Amino acid sequence: MAESGADVKPKLQDEIRAQGEIVRKLKAENGDAEKIKEEVDKLLALKKLKEDAPSSKNFVLKCPKGTKDYTPLQMAIRESVFNTIITCFKRHGAETIDTPVFELKETLTGKYGEDSKLIYDLKDQGGELLSLRYDLTVPFARYLAMNKVMNIKRYHIAKVYRRDNPAMTRGRFREFYQCDFDIAGQYDPMIPDAECIKIVTEILSKLELGDFVIKVNHRKLLDGMFAACGVPDDKFRTICSSVDKLDKTFWEDVRTEMIEEKKLDPEAADKIGKYVKLQGKTVNSACYHTYTTNFASYYTELSTRESSKVSRVLLYRVIYEGVLKGFTHDPSKKKGEETVSVGSVAGGGRYDGLVGMFDPKGRKVPCVGVSIGIERVFAIMEARAIAAKSKIRTTETEVYVVSAQKGLLEERLKLCRELWDANIKTEQAYKANPKPLTQFQYCETAGIPLAVIIGQSEIENQFVKLRNTVTREEKNVPRDQMIAEIKSELEKMA
Amino acid sequence: MAESGADVKPKLQDEIRAQGEIVRKLKAENGDAEKIKEEVDKLLALKKLKEDAPSSKNFVLKCPKGTKDYTPLQMAIRESVFNTIITCFKRHGAETIDTPVFELKETLTGKYGEDSKLIYDLKDQGGELLSLRYDLTVPFARYLAMNKVMNIKRYHIAKVYRRDNPAMTRGRFREFYQCDFDIAGQYDPMIPDAECIKIVTEILSKLELGDFVIKVNHRKLLDGMFAACGVPDDKFRTICSSVDKLDKTFWEDVRTEMIEEKKLDPEAADKIGKYVKLQGKTVNSACYHTYTTNFASYYTELSTRESSKVSRVLLYRVIYEGVLKGFTHDPSKKKGEETVSVGSVAGGGRYDGLVGMFDPKGRKVPCVGVSIGIERVFAIMEARAIAAKSKIRTTETEVYVVSAQKGLLEERLKLCRELWDANIKTEQAYKANPKPLTQFQYCETAGIPLAVIIGQSEIENQFVKLRNTVTREEKNVPRDQMIAEIKSELEKMA
Repeated sequence: MAESGADVKPKLQDEIRAQGEIVRKLKAENGDAEKIKEEVDKLLALKKLKEDAPSSKNFVLKCPKGTKDYTPLQMAIRESVFNTIITCFKRHGAETIDTPVFELKETLTGKYGEDSKLIYDLKDQGGELLSLRYDLTVPFARYLAMNKVMNIKRYHIAKVYRRDNPAMTRGRFREFYQCDFDIAGQYDPMIPDAECIKIVTEILSKLELGDFVIKVNHRKLLDGMFAACGVPDDKFRTICSSVDKLDKTFWEDVRTEMIEEKKLDPEAADKIGKYVKLQGKTVNSACYHTYTTNFASYYTELSTRESSKVSRVLLYRVIYEGVLKGFTHDPSKKKGEETVSVGSVAGGGRYDGLVGMFDPKGRKVPCVGVSIGIERVFAIMEARAIAAKSKIRTTETEVYVVSAQKGLLEERLKLCRELWDANIKTEQAYKANPKPLTQFQYCETAGIPLAVIIGQSEIENQFVKLRNTVTREEKNVPRDQMIAEIKSELEKMA
Repeated sequence: MAESGADVKPKLQDEIRAQGEIVRKLKAENGDAEKIKEEVDKLLALKKLKEDAPSSKNFVLKCPKGTKDYTPLQMAIRESVFNTIITCFKRHGAETIDTPVFELKETLTGKYGEDSKLIYDLKDQGGELLSLRYDLTVPFARYLAMNKVMNIKRYHIAKVYRRDNPAMTRGRFREFYQCDFDIAGQYDPMIPDAECIKIVTEILSKLELGDFVIKVNHRKLLDGMFAACGVPDDKFRTICSSVDKLDKTFWEDVRTEMIEEKKLDPEAADKIGKYVKLQGKTVNSACYHTYTTNFASYYTELSTRESSKVSRVLLYRVIYEGVLKGFTHDPSKKKGEETVSVGSVAGGGRYDGLVGMFDPKGRKVPCVGVSIGIERVFAIMEARAIAAKSKIRTTETEVYVVSAQKGLLEERLKLCRELWDANIKTEQAYKANPKPLTQFQYCETAGIPLAVIIGQSEIENQFVKLRNTVTREEKNVPRDQMIAEIKSELEKMA
């Protein structure tokens, strides 16, 4: 079995042991001296090999930089967050797909601009050149072009990889989850776009992360603002990349970068500063009026007045961002007034040209989508769970089978089988003769609501003792009514 | 937003467009000739860059060798198989963890013997040397040692990576899922082992893959058999690796390899052949009698007599294998009698020494576990779904909102919002004025059970038409009773 866990045994250790036995046997049999020497040499060579192999002594026991294990507690939080998100995606009729964790290197080439340097490449071990996926959007576009899919509404929840500087406590990793929802297809303007924002609204509300705001913007509008501020045309891109830093950096630092590094006229920089401080106010732009009106009205129909959280509604080819207010970094504040934080938990927009880059005939499939930055959500949820000292169970065990005396292992096994076969989540001690107290303590620590207790007299009289872990109440239940009784107790607790 | 899907726009294309505008503007303004030339040169340089980049024309549109995308249909099958498996793991009280897709290279070093050549390494881009995980067992052992976990019952479902020769139609991939369940901790002999086999039995039964057999074996017993057949001690390992090939290769090919390549006495090879054909019969070995008896009795208690499928019960430090009878390759048959097939879908065993290899103090944590070879199960399920022509839905949409006339987009949006907010899975067309027939056809194709239809008269009289997609029955429902009526209809259908 290639997949077998048994593959994994320390093979070298095994080989040394086997070789040792050969030597011992030969010696015991007073075997041929030359043969013995030969086998001893083999043994020594194997031992040398083991010494040369990295031993656990000087071994660094860690996860790769920027990555982490998920503990059972973190997995329980992750499962509950994913459930909320997947329920929302399915409520909107989405299918799901999956793609390999790596792509042909050339599939990713030319898609990420200067961020390409953050792509993980695989070593050339012969065969194709591969890279780990950097996001789920490019693999999605490759999938659409490859399978000639002209329209689909799909979600994809999977890990992506970026050789970035990690900031683990703020939920920034080199391996992290993306939860993407995208609508591909030639549709009427703004209808799928408005639904994407509705989805972000629903998810951020259901996750109960506090107040949030969804910012809607468009690159061309930013360009218009730059022109009005007197930024020369050829500085648009570079000044734009400075402005993009405002969610992580203070305005005064961005201003310095613009003036000193990018040689922008300080007067232009200060004008930009005024716009930046216009947070939440609509910047009008007549030429995009129609789109604006459509989008705003579609989105309004999708949202009740109270839940409408879109602060800026601007125009077609939109870019979205969902920001948690409780965690927002206000770039207009001065340094020291507030720490830089992690408000942005969702982003998205249109990418109408991407599929065409893959299609052999350049056929376009317009796409719009959102991506939930779930690691930040995990970080917030986890901190909350710890702060609230709330007990999150990491198993769902309903019944623990307890033996009150020694020598009842086989009776316990029989009970377990009966409970498992009745679909009741059941555990027992893996000891032949566990102490009763240890078993009850395990129930309490693990939060298992019910215990089924057996002793010699229970077995002889064909009943079991059913114990409620919280109230510590016990009652005798005839053995043949045990399953029904447990199911009714569990129902009462639900 | 680093996570934004909007990142992904073809940046080079954007830059060319922006630069083009600069040139056009300069020319329109009759700008400085030298300045124009400078900007034109920039534009040409960008265009050259684009030409050099791999274009979609000569681009290979494919997944990396040995990997595949999952379509929505395959994902629906995968989700249902995972549900069955996870339900079983949870029924046995397991927690779950997750580890990164890559590990420090040295974490994997020395754990896989000659299979190490199948490990995917990442390119050295500065920093740590990394490799993709080869299975979930070594990362689990690393996790236990790193976090000083002395006992845990956990499952882990994730993809692993092997640079093996893929055989995609038979479910053998370079990227594939493993579903592992392991019990770590110092417990009494055979109790956790027997539960692992119970779990394989439960999962293979619930998946309804037909009759199966669970083979239980032990390496030392194989050694005993070799000794009895007259295999020299120093050929045990290599002959063992030949015998391991019997699940994929015919006996006569294995025999040839033993004699010609490994220089085994043909007489010894033929004796091995006789044992190999003893399939399903118990080979007795007195010294392991106690363990055998315990294991057999524990397992018997865990299984009803009818469902007991363990064909060979041998001894401690067991190796398991779950084989589907309908898909079994019988190595004793002659070539041509039957094609080599994919019977083995589960494997596992003890690995008591592995955690100690990671622990700085060499502390041991005994472990036993099973791994479900789920790709083969997917392959069987998928073939079945296709053969049965059964319609598997890839979405869960319950209601489709249909407009009977033009100009009702905003009314449809309002209805969708109301339905979504009531937790009803709802879709609508992304067109402003979709044709009624197109909308009804979509309902039928996608298997959406209900349609809510609105027209001008419905809106004026405050009701909706509710249509059953299968029976095509329609009824009028007052708008304020719509949600209740839909929920009751859906309940009837469930």
